Amino acid sequence: MSNFRKCVVLLSGGLDSSTVLAMAKSQGFLCHALTIHYQQRHEVELESARKVAKALGVEAHKFLEIDLRTLGGSALTSDVAVPKNRAQEHIASEIPITYVPARNTVFLSLALAWAEVLDAADIFVGVNAVDYSGYPDCRPEFIQSFENLANLATKAGVEGKTRFKIHAPLSSFSKAEIIREGRRLGLDFSLTHSCYDPTPQGKACGSCDSCILRKQGFLAAGLSDPALEGI
Amino acid sequence: MSNFRKCVVLLSGGLDSSTVLAMAKSQGFLCHALTIHYQQRHEVELESARKVAKALGVEAHKFLEIDLRTLGGSALTSDVAVPKNRAQEHIASEIPITYVPARNTVFLSLALAWAEVLDAADIFVGVNAVDYSGYPDCRPEFIQSFENLANLATKAGVEGKTRFKIHAPLSSFSKAEIIREGRRLGLDFSLTHSCYDPTPQGKACGSCDSCILRKQGFLAAGLSDPALEGI
Repeated sequence: MSNFRKCVVLLSGGLDSSTVLAMAKSQGFLCHALTIHYQQRHEVELESARKVAKALGVEAHKFLEIDLRTLGGSALTSDVAVPKNRAQEHIASEIPITYVPARNTVFLSLALAWAEVLDAADIFVGVNAVDYSGYPDCRPEFIQSFENLANLATKAGVEGKTRFKIHAPLSSFSKAEIIREGRRLGLDFSLTHSCYDPTPQGKACGSCDSCILRKQGFLAAGLSDPALEGI
Repeated sequence: MSNFRKCVVLLSGGLDSSTVLAMAKSQGFLCHALTIHYQQRHEVELESARKVAKALGVEAHKFLEIDLRTLGGSALTSDVAVPKNRAQEHIASEIPITYVPARNTVFLSLALAWAEVLDAADIFVGVNAVDYSGYPDCRPEFIQSFENLANLATKAGVEGKTRFKIHAPLSSFSKAEIIREGRRLGLDFSLTHSCYDPTPQGKACGSCDSCILRKQGFLAAGLSDPALEGI
């Protein structure tokens, strides 16, 4: 019999995944946070992940290194410039060069591996299909397909011991709704990091797609963003 | 328009994946070999992968490091003893402790990421459902499910530019049939490595599940195994 109270949460240290961790906690799950260090240019988010996991309280927090620069194909793992000052409707309408090929498939696979080891049936991921409609691996049909795969891919799934479930609770949330939910759950946004192209001191640039969506979200939610103060 | 002649081959350096590389080459694909260094205890296979890729000729060969010891759960990534001298029917009847949770899901995800970067539609993997019927992620239904996922998970799949195909040509082959196919294609078996628990000098132990299946396969194929000479 599987322990249905344990879960694995993919935690980048960004606003979305931090809110998801707060949501999983509020549902009573024993959270095991997994943070992937893939040599992203914004690796300052790893420190945010550490702070968020500590602030919210988790059973365990693992960092796994995988150098996705080896495979290339993204502005987030190369020296290609991150786009700046794009209009919000433009951001949502195409797959940007910050897309990392198959990233969520890789990350969910690693979360699945740990869930199987932990005997946990539940995996939480902060994908969101509204603002990032351009990312194929953020869509509900992708999440459903991965859930089907998980139950065929593992010893636990095949033996019928565990029915894996992939939770993507932000799937239909706007950024403003995510921020309101995080606030409702007491998340300290100053710990989170969203910027794709931070300064060497780890400060948000304020003009990449991720900063723009975050700013608009805080504006729409009627809140101020502690991470962007002073920009 | 995708280049349908490029492919990615997951190459461990073992007998099966080396045969698959030879098969992909014989079908005219421009092969891009991907070898995952996951801190497996038999990391001597990495050197075999290098030799096999060089001997068969590939367009590129990448090694990607990911420390699966971080997640645990397998004799192949821990100090748990590898089972020895098990009967062949026993090997095929259960999922052994050498099973690495979600390994093929992780590896195929990484192959998919590279395929997307390369604009390649074809991914080859040496899974086999006969001898290792106990591994959930070697079964045809797993491979089919991953193929479905691949076409939802990627920019290339969603844009309809590429229809990813996961080739598992050994799926219904016995070990003897794999060996005969490798021989037919001129594969030098002395370059390959199968043992889960090699000596510090990199020699096969001759008694782990993988060695036993390999020995039985060579016996059934009426050939001698250069890797086991002197054991």
